[in-house]
Order: sequence, then C-alpha cells, then structure tokens
Amino acid sequence: MAAFITLTTDFGLSDPYVASMNGSIYTLNPDARIIDVSHDIRPQAIEQAAFVLEYALPYLPPNAIHVIVVDPGVGTSRKALALTTPGAVFVGPDNGVLSAALPAGLRAGVADRPAPVDLPDGYAAYELTNDEYHRKPVSVTFHGRDIFAPVAAHLSLGVPPASLGPPVTRIVAIPPFIALTNPDGSLSGRIVHVDRYGNLITNVRGEQTRDRSVTIEIAGRTIKGLSHTYQDATGLTAIVASTGFVAIVVPNGSASRELAVDISEPLTVRTA
Amino acid sequence: MAAFITLTTDFGLSDPYVASMNGSIYTLNPDARIIDVSHDIRPQAIEQAAFVLEYALPYLPPNAIHVIVVDPGVGTSRKALALTTPGAVFVGPDNGVLSAALPAGLRAGVADRPAPVDLPDGYAAYELTNDEYHRKPVSVTFHGRDIFAPVAAHLSLGVPPASLGPPVTRIVAIPPFIALTNPDGSLSGRIVHVDRYGNLITNVRGEQTRDRSVTIEIAGRTIKGLSHTYQDATGLTAIVASTGFVAIVVPNGSASRELAVDISEPLTVRTA
Amino acid sequence: MAAFITLTTDFGLSDPYVASMNGSIYTLNPDARIIDVSHDIRPQAIEQAAFVLEYALPYLPPNAIHVIVVDPGVGTSRKALALTTPGAVFVGPDNGVLSAALPAGLRAGVADRPAPVDLPDGYAAYELTNDEYHRKPVSVTFHGRDIFAPVAAHLSLGVPPASLGPPVTRIVAIPPFIALTNPDGSLSGRIVHVDRYGNLITNVRGEQTRDRSVTIEIAGRTIKGLSHTYQDATGLTAIVASTGFVAIVVPNGSASRELAVDISEPLTVRTA
Repeated sequence: MAAFITLTTDFGLSDPYVASMNGSIYTLNPDARIIDVSHDIRPQAIEQAAFVLEYALPYLPPNAIHVIVVDPGVGTSRKALALTTPGAVFVGPDNGVLSAALPAGLRAGVADRPAPVDLPDGYAAYELTNDEYHRKPVSVTFHGRDIFAPVAAHLSLGVPPASLGPPVTRIVAIPPFIALTNPDGSLSGRIVHVDRYGNLITNVRGEQTRDRSVTIEIAGRTIKGLSHTYQDATGLTAIVASTGFVAIVVPNGSASRELAVDISEPLTVRTA
Repeated sequence: MAAFITLTTDFGLSDPYVASMNGSIYTLNPDARIIDVSHDIRPQAIEQAAFVLEYALPYLPPNAIHVIVVDPGVGTSRKALALTTPGAVFVGPDNGVLSAALPAGLRAGVADRPAPVDLPDGYAAYELTNDEYHRKPVSVTFHGRDIFAPVAAHLSLGVPPASLGPPVTRIVAIPPFIALTNPDGSLSGRIVHVDRYGNLITNVRGEQTRDRSVTIEIAGRTIKGLSHTYQDATGLTAIVASTGFVAIVVPNGSASRELAVDISEPLTVRTA
Repeated sequence: MAAFITLTTDFGLSDPYVASMNGSIYTLNPDARIIDVSHDIRPQAIEQAAFVLEYALPYLPPNAIHVIVVDPGVGTSRKALALTTPGAVFVGPDNGVLSAALPAGLRAGVADRPAPVDLPDGYAAYELTNDEYHRKPVSVTFHGRDIFAPVAAHLSLGVPPASLGPPVTRIVAIPPFIALTNPDGSLSGRIVHVDRYGNLITNVRGEQTRDRSVTIEIAGRTIKGLSHTYQDATGLTAIVASTGFVAIVVPNGSASRELAVDISEPLTVRTA
C-alpha cells in the first residue's frame, strides 16, 4: 500500500540507525515511500526538530505519516504517541516534538518551556502501548526502530490509530514560533535554526514586520531594513526567508560565523 | 506516472530544504522516483555543480529529468529554464549550471567565465514563466521548492516543455572541463573537485595524457607518471580516475591535506 | 521487479559516487528499491563496514540484496564476489566486508586479522568474472559502479547467482564481534564504532555481561555497573545499547570526547 512516511530525527546519516528504521518500515510495508525531512537535528534538540518539521510541513504530501524521533527520555516514563490531525498523522515521543502538528493558537498558551495542552476538536492521540504493533524485543534505548517506525508502517497499512493504545487527551507542546511583543512595541525574538549557509533563522514572523523600515539588534550589531533578495544587499542583511521567518544573512558568507552566534541567541526588532 | 527526477543542489542535508523539494514533487506526482546526485555542492559553486552532474550523467537512467539548483541569483533577473536535449530534460537557473546538458564542443567556444551560447539542433529551452506550473505563493528566495521542483514534477507527468513558457535560443554555458594546451605542448589545468578521500580531481582528461610518461607539477611538487590503480604506488600519485579525469591522490591518505590545496588550484602537465 | 537493494559504502554523500551506483541499478531495474545503510564508513574501514551492516541486518527486509563497497584493493587481484546465504544475497569485494553474512561460529576460527574460511552448507559464493553483467567499460578504480551495482541489479531481476562466474568455496572473513575471555575470567574488548552521539560501541556482547555488577576499565577510567537507560545515570556510563553490545556513553554528552578515544581503543570488563 503506497503511503508517504516522513522521518525527522537526530540520528545523523553515518550510523545504521536510520537504515534500521527504514528496514522496520519496509519489512512491514514494502510499498511505503519514505521522505527524509532531516536526520541532522542536533542531539536532543526538541525545539529545533519541531521547527524543521513545521517549516517542511506545508510542502510534504497530504495525509502523510510523520515520524519524529528526538527522544532524550527514551526508556523513561515519557509517553509514546500517535497523534491524528485533520491533515496527517504524527508519531513520536510526548516531549514537545509533536508540536508541529498542533495549531499555533493552541500553543500560544504555552509559556517558555514544554507543557501539556488539551487536544482541540479534530485531533486525537493514542498512547502506543499495544505491543502487537511493535517490533519485538523492544529495546530500552531505540524506540524509533522498535516502536515508532513499525507503528508508522502499520498505520500506512490501514491499522486504525485507536488500535494502537488508549486515547490521551493532553499532549506536551512547546511555545509557538513567534516573537514576543514588548510594551514599547518592539519585538523580542531569538534564533531557532542555523542553516547550511550560516543563515540565522529567527522566530520573528514575516507578518510581524510588515513595515520594512525595521531595525534589528543582535549580538551588538544593528541591521536596518529588510531586503527582498539575497542580492539586494551586501554584508549583514535581514530578509524574510523562504521559511516565512525573518533571517539574518550574509550574502555569499555566513551570518553565523560573522556574528559568532548560534541557536538561542536573542534579538530585538524595532520599528524605528 | 513513474519517472526519474534527479536533484543536484547546494542545500546540504541538515535543513528541510531538500525535503521541501521532495514534497513539492511527490505532492504532484506520487509515483516519481527521486535520485540525489549531491546536495553537498559548496554554497553557490556553479562550476562544481556542473562538474558533479556531468560526472554522474552517463550512469543515470535515460530520459530522466535533472533538476540543478545552485542559484546565487535567485530572485534577480536571471532566467529560470527547462532545457530539453536528445536524452533528457534539465531544469534550473540560467547561470551555467545547465552546462552539463550541453555538448562539449558547444562549450569549447566559452572562454574563462560563463557566457551565453546558441542552442544547437535537437536542443530547446523554455523560460519558466507560466506560473500555472509553479507552487504558489512563489517565494523570492527558494525557487528550487516553488518553481524547479514543481516544474520537474509536471514534466514527469507529461506536461509538454513548451507549455512552461516562451522558448529561448541562448543559454549561459561554462567552459568545458578540459585542460588547455600551451604552445610548448604542455597542459594547463586545475582542480575542479575534491572528493571525500581528499582526491584532487583535475580538468585534465585521460585522453589528453595517453602517453603515461607525464610529469605533473602542482603546489611546488612534481609527480612522475600515471598509476593504474590506487595500490600501484605509495605517496603522492596521479591516476586516471573513475571520472575519466586525471586525479592527484595519496593512497590511504588525502592529497588535499598533503598538498594543502583546494578547488581552483592550477597544475601543469608535461610529457617529458 | 520490486526488490530491495541495500548499500553500505565509504563513499560519503558529497560526491557523485553513490548517485552513480544508484543510476547503475535503476537503469537496469527501474523498480528496484534502494536502502542506504551508511555511506559514511571511514575510508577503507573494512571492519567498521562489517559491523555497521551486521547491526542493521536483522532490521532490513528479508531476501534483500546487500551491496558492500569498502574496497581498498579495487583494481588488484582481490576477488569480487556474490555470496548467497539462507536469508539474503551479499555482493562486494572478498576482503572481509562480506563477513556480516557469515555465521558467528564460522568466524570464531578467525584470529586477529582477515583470513579465508570454508563456506558452510547453505552458503555459496561466485566470483564476478562474467562481464555480461557488468557495466562497460569497467573502470579500474570504481567497481562499485561498474560491477557490484549492476550485478545487484541483475540479481534483483532474477539472474541466477551461478551465472555471474565460477563458484568459490572459501571467502575472507574477519573475527566475530565478541570480547575475548581472559584466564582470570575478565573480558578484553575494544571499541568497534563511534556513533553520532559520541557513544563508544564495544565488541562486548550484552550476554557476556549478564551480571550487571561489572567494572569496565577504559582509557584510565573505571565505570561501575550497567545502566538500563540513558537517563538512569549522569556522567560516564556503560549501557547495553540497541546494538546488543555494551556501549560507553555520556548522557547529553559525548563519551568519545570525554575519554578522547576512538575506534580500536581497548577496554577490560571485570565481574567484580
């Protein structure tokens, strides 16, 4: 049965871990189609995983099954979940990585660290306790291979999510990717991803800066205005990137290197 | 509809950019088969992208659709093109990366930087202006996802290239990968790619050195003769690599590290 | 004809080498399904390749064709082989990388370096001399593309292994991945793989340490006991990893960095 299964993990591509997940899936459903979203999430970086998947999601095939395995709590009491939404199914640990599946409005209530939220209408989650759908023996340290991948394969074959285990009504969510508005109207954001080009992707949404005469302060530097393309400017530049978020870039260079900053670095946006 | 689409980009595999292209393709044509040629072209390295694709091309399935996205001019006035050739279709920006599709003879007229050439018989190109075949909204900075990938998917579904936009008769080409012959009969070449093993791939073609008693000068070192296999010699060695080009290698070592050279390093070949 | 072909190589993903193998396969069998086990085996690391494939093998689809290309002797007199086993077919050079296909008992007779062993019942090997199944011209330096990949494709199309060339009855094997038991009952092991997290995977099998009150000595440090999960402990910890082997880990850190050790580092396990 042809169905798309996407994988987002922090496993890297050097080790046989991703191949093991692929094998777990194909052994059960040889017709599954696997799309790698990224296997280069930084080890244990829950928020980065959610960001990367959230970015890719609008472009991935409809009705896909999305497996996300960034799982520092594997083998502890954290739940393993399948989450069904109006457009897709998400499979992974209940530690915040499934947030990309949730409406931003729902996550708006989450303050600065992962916290449980009530699932809205149209969403349902099931705890993956029915080991009929796991690969046995289930290892203590690699649920990606032994639980999440086989569950995704079974879902792709038409197993109803409710067979996977008991329903849960609350799920751990992380705050939405959006800059906070300060009393003086300025925005407080931060870097949430650094891409291959050294572009610094912020959590400042393009629509938060409709006025292009913004001033951005980051790492002791000040950037004036937003460019339209990478070639409109030279040197340190702000742009609304293909992510829909403001990015700090150096055309033909690396903003990450030039500013010597990384994920989590704060920035302030002022409409001057 | 099963059809092969290949991807050559400088996006890396860490970010969700390649996944977004995959998703753009599979959403339109779930039966497409994608082959990754390389996503590790150095940022903005047009010539390296053309070299890597030119190397792989004889081995890729016939009639494939080749998408190349190394696109420093994205969002500027550079054209986006689909180029049909006797054996395949190529999709990408008109900045020289499509050169791998062109006969070497045609490119022989191009001097030392990208320049437009007239398309020969059997070749046709179309500017990708018909946004019916794009993913909307088209971002200013990521045509790989919003134009090139969906255009490739539509082509794989049988859309005629001429529907994509108006024909163009000239296309930007880069010089062919071949060493220049000097008045004294020696060859002037340079490094065009460094592979994982630190092998330095030159633009000196094997057939330019049929006489194996050559002497190669590079970075102050002199290498005598061409070896047949990596194990024929120890230390710094020249070999006609699987690319068909002369490579400078260090068996069980790295020529790149030993010579401390990189892409663009010049070399001279003398038939002593 | 749909069939799974897996690839384990030291080619990396930056160069067009893996794409060339993919193309060689798909050109012959467009319906083949390729699974990448790893392309990031260290250059020429035969034992690491065998370990990584051996780890993944139980999870890969049954009856797959496994191509392993870590081939420092390419172009020399080392044989190229197809090895049929009760569960799968393996294709690669006869230098020890095919060991993952052999029963551990058979390899137990191999001392500390690769050596030929007689094939047991149910196993057969053929030397890949019939160039009808190769891609021509066959390069001297890239049999992965010109011999191993096309042979795998032909096998996936139903070509009988015996057509590939003459049978051979002995094959080069490497020692099994298991720690040696010393006269005093302690175990002498070593690191056989370092994964992305800096986890040091040893050749000490979980079943060799059933008594969890073990003491491990490595790089001047002593580790007491085996943890169940990554979160049971902080700091330097030993755990029976998802590989089934004892691993030395630092939860949320890198054991490789903390101990400054790499593949081949020896360790001693005592049951105190």
